[in-house]
Amino acid sequence: MTAKTWAYEDFVEGTSLDLGTKLVSAAEIIEFAREFDAQPMHLDEEAGKASILGGGLAASGWHTCAMFMRMLCDAFLLDSTCQGAPGVDQVKWKKPVLAGDQLTGSLVVVAKRLSKSKPQLGFVTMRSELFNQRGENVFELENSVMFLTREAAGSLA
Amino acid sequence: MTAKTWAYEDFVEGTSLDLGTKLVSAAEIIEFAREFDAQPMHLDEEAGKASILGGGLAASGWHTCAMFMRMLCDAFLLDSTCQGAPGVDQVKWKKPVLAGDQLTGSLVVVAKRLSKSKPQLGFVTMRSELFNQRGENVFELENSVMFLTREAAGSLA
Repeated sequence: MTAKTWAYEDFVEGTSLDLGTKLVSAAEIIEFAREFDAQPMHLDEEAGKASILGGGLAASGWHTCAMFMRMLCDAFLLDSTCQGAPGVDQVKWKKPVLAGDQLTGSLVVVAKRLSKSKPQLGFVTMRSELFNQRGENVFELENSVMFLTREAAGSLA
Repeated sequence: MTAKTWAYEDFVEGTSLDLGTKLVSAAEIIEFAREFDAQPMHLDEEAGKASILGGGLAASGWHTCAMFMRMLCDAFLLDSTCQGAPGVDQVKWKKPVLAGDQLTGSLVVVAKRLSKSKPQLGFVTMRSELFNQRGENVFELENSVMFLTREAAGSLA
């Protein structure tokens, strides 16, 4: 048996999981943008206001993805038998994520199935959402994540 | 007229664009993982080899997305009238991106259309790919990116 709390068997279709909260700072928005996505609205408050996004200094959409991943890790993924994911089915950047925003997240287990070629592995399809402090849905993501079964994780440990 | 080289009008369906190259270092894989995706295969060479990904120290899939975005920025996006993107239609992490890999990228303009509600804005649908130094396709992404028309960008500048 694995010591991890979450194995493939522990995900139940239709249930939801809390992803906690994340306060987004101007400094981290700018740091991410400088390295990966140096568009003006991700580097400068005034440029953000002037852009069609409006509002102010706005996080790169990829930064929002990365912050979501950190929330997922902290909520349960690092205490799971996760083996990564083959990709992402859909990302929606629905509203700007702005400096000072407090994000909260949740996900719903949409479906699950064992791999046909690797029976020690299962795919868990998750639909995740992030909301800002005004309750606005700013981000949606759907993808399938791979988890070892509890038995397989135990035999590999 | 805008001083930017790339406005909505400059994207032609069916043409491809070179995204240059990117050498992926172990240090940056680990730095990204510590902040956003601290799964063992993204932090440690041996854990990477032991995972179902195999191979060695493997970049977080979100890190690959971020590196792709940087390549896109350097190739043309920072010299364009880009106004962001509403989301991503599909991401495929097809093979692990490993420390020491040299990525090359390209994209094809799949489709384009002017916005119905905002005629100064158009959507350009792009299908992008990254390859490693062995010519293996490691990453695919498809999404629609918003660009101002040349006339609108000039009047806003």
